[in-house]
Amino acid sequence: MIGASGHSDICVPDSVCQERNFAAIAPGSLGESVAGMERRLREIGYSPNVYADYREMLRKEKPDVAVVDNFYGEHGPVILDAFAAGCHVFAEKPAAAGLEQLELIQEAWHRAGTSFAGMFTYRYDGAFYRAWQLIQEGAVGSVRLLNAQKSYKYGTRPDFMSRRETYGGTIPWVGIHGIDWILWMSGGCFTSVTAVQSAAEAPNGVCPETTALAQFRMKDDRMASLTVDYLNPEAAPSHGDDRIRVVGTDGVLEVRDNGVTLLNSRGVQHPQNLPDGDFFADFLAQAAGKGKCRISAEETFAATRTALLAQRAADSGETICF
Amino acid sequence: MIGASGHSDICVPDSVCQERNFAAIAPGSLGESVAGMERRLREIGYSPNVYADYREMLRKEKPDVAVVDNFYGEHGPVILDAFAAGCHVFAEKPAAAGLEQLELIQEAWHRAGTSFAGMFTYRYDGAFYRAWQLIQEGAVGSVRLLNAQKSYKYGTRPDFMSRRETYGGTIPWVGIHGIDWILWMSGGCFTSVTAVQSAAEAPNGVCPETTALAQFRMKDDRMASLTVDYLNPEAAPSHGDDRIRVVGTDGVLEVRDNGVTLLNSRGVQHPQNLPDGDFFADFLAQAAGKGKCRISAEETFAATRTALLAQRAADSGETICF
Repeated sequence: MIGASGHSDICVPDSVCQERNFAAIAPGSLGESVAGMERRLREIGYSPNVYADYREMLRKEKPDVAVVDNFYGEHGPVILDAFAAGCHVFAEKPAAAGLEQLELIQEAWHRAGTSFAGMFTYRYDGAFYRAWQLIQEGAVGSVRLLNAQKSYKYGTRPDFMSRRETYGGTIPWVGIHGIDWILWMSGGCFTSVTAVQSAAEAPNGVCPETTALAQFRMKDDRMASLTVDYLNPEAAPSHGDDRIRVVGTDGVLEVRDNGVTLLNSRGVQHPQNLPDGDFFADFLAQAAGKGKCRISAEETFAATRTALLAQRAADSGETICF
Repeated sequence: MIGASGHSDICVPDSVCQERNFAAIAPGSLGESVAGMERRLREIGYSPNVYADYREMLRKEKPDVAVVDNFYGEHGPVILDAFAAGCHVFAEKPAAAGLEQLELIQEAWHRAGTSFAGMFTYRYDGAFYRAWQLIQEGAVGSVRLLNAQKSYKYGTRPDFMSRRETYGGTIPWVGIHGIDWILWMSGGCFTSVTAVQSAAEAPNGVCPETTALAQFRMKDDRMASLTVDYLNPEAAPSHGDDRIRVVGTDGVLEVRDNGVTLLNSRGVQHPQNLPDGDFFADFLAQAAGKGKCRISAEETFAATRTALLAQRAADSGETICF
């Protein structure tokens, strides 16, 4: 495990299991602490070796799999090192903080010939997965328009989020999930993006951006919008208010409040969620050559690239063509 | 009454009332029929004179008030004629089909010195009005981000909607309501707009546009998004699925399914709707110098201008600055 600043806890089982030996842990960013994760692993019954330098860890431990979860703006160099060490890489998003870095990562992945997935955890969420399945079954016909929403509580945020270099940006950190939903549920291909952002409500007024919008043109005259904010009130029933609305030629589907609503010629329906899945178990199976997890390396790259272009659009005020 | 192709039925009471004598009716567009409205007025007990030429009607009848409701892309010239005849004008939106025409209307209104309001009917809807009131009371703090949604059933549409000249466009016809909500609920000022549209699902593939998105930058680093579609399924519980989400520094408010949800430090609340109001009664009172209706001429102009600029943005693919 390299870093523990994002969602790497999804990799950690409730008790020691043979398929997952957490052999070693190290921070992946300067100033990052992995003490909490180390403690948790020991509580469960693992005995990870602890390193100050993750490169030394990769050299000495020669792990099969690297979980990359350092500061959000600094995943790229760590992923490159992990591929160079021949690892399968399970990485927090965004994979890269810039397009050049993303290309290097794609090349490194090709060279390594190992498995790669970004932590697009919603693909293993029972409501979102059910929605995707319904769309595949034709429940809304041909998808024409999508509206994605991410709304988070601000809560207590780590210091590294107050600088773009270590944070990466709200669109690549939060918005990227909405981008992934849009790609996943439409099977579609973005052709341009225009975006807006504001850090007016950040404690330092600079970073992180607390509100953002992105508007996408897609192939075949389809389109999508994304709204992101950190203004979900503390008293809200859940941390996130995640939504996707998928408008098709024959129906409208929504995920909201952790459930699915489908409206088509049969009227309003509330299909049951599928069970939540175990993303990391699927990834490990894929790495072992058994099956595939629900997001490919290519899809991870596509969502990352889109998020980086959307961030560039927001930074520049320009419409960016893909 | 000039034309009856939009929502002029909101002006018609259930039974004859002294304050409203529907003295005369004429079509306002070539090929428009007002027979249905004429029949309705007679059923109630009015005896309107019927004219083929609304200009002749204005000259002969010298009405106090003109209700303008001809084809959606052709309101402008009729409004200009009504102001020239010294009328108070209650007009279906959009007031104009182009910016030059809108300026002429503003000048004509100044010269006439009469009352003017666009049929922004949601200002008299008990859910939307309650939402606006709560925002005025500070329920969400300072407004930072707004997401507006209009979704209509396609149903059976009149022929004049299949041509841009007579229709005007989906953004100025449908989207304009969302634009008005954004202006109304934020008190804000747009600075730029980017928009996308597609007529792929229109029967003739050209007009009306069946999906559209617009993204707005606003003063003080605020922002808003608008999504519009004609793909609300026939089996949907209501014709429209109208929503506004207002995200503020201290809370989030939504209108959805004809009700208000407020989420702030007091948790999730469902404030009761206010009663629906009688827009036209208020307008007539304002015309008589008694009080004000809930939308001013200036606000009508602002929403119209914004919709026309958004339409231009969608047509050109350019970001338009205000």
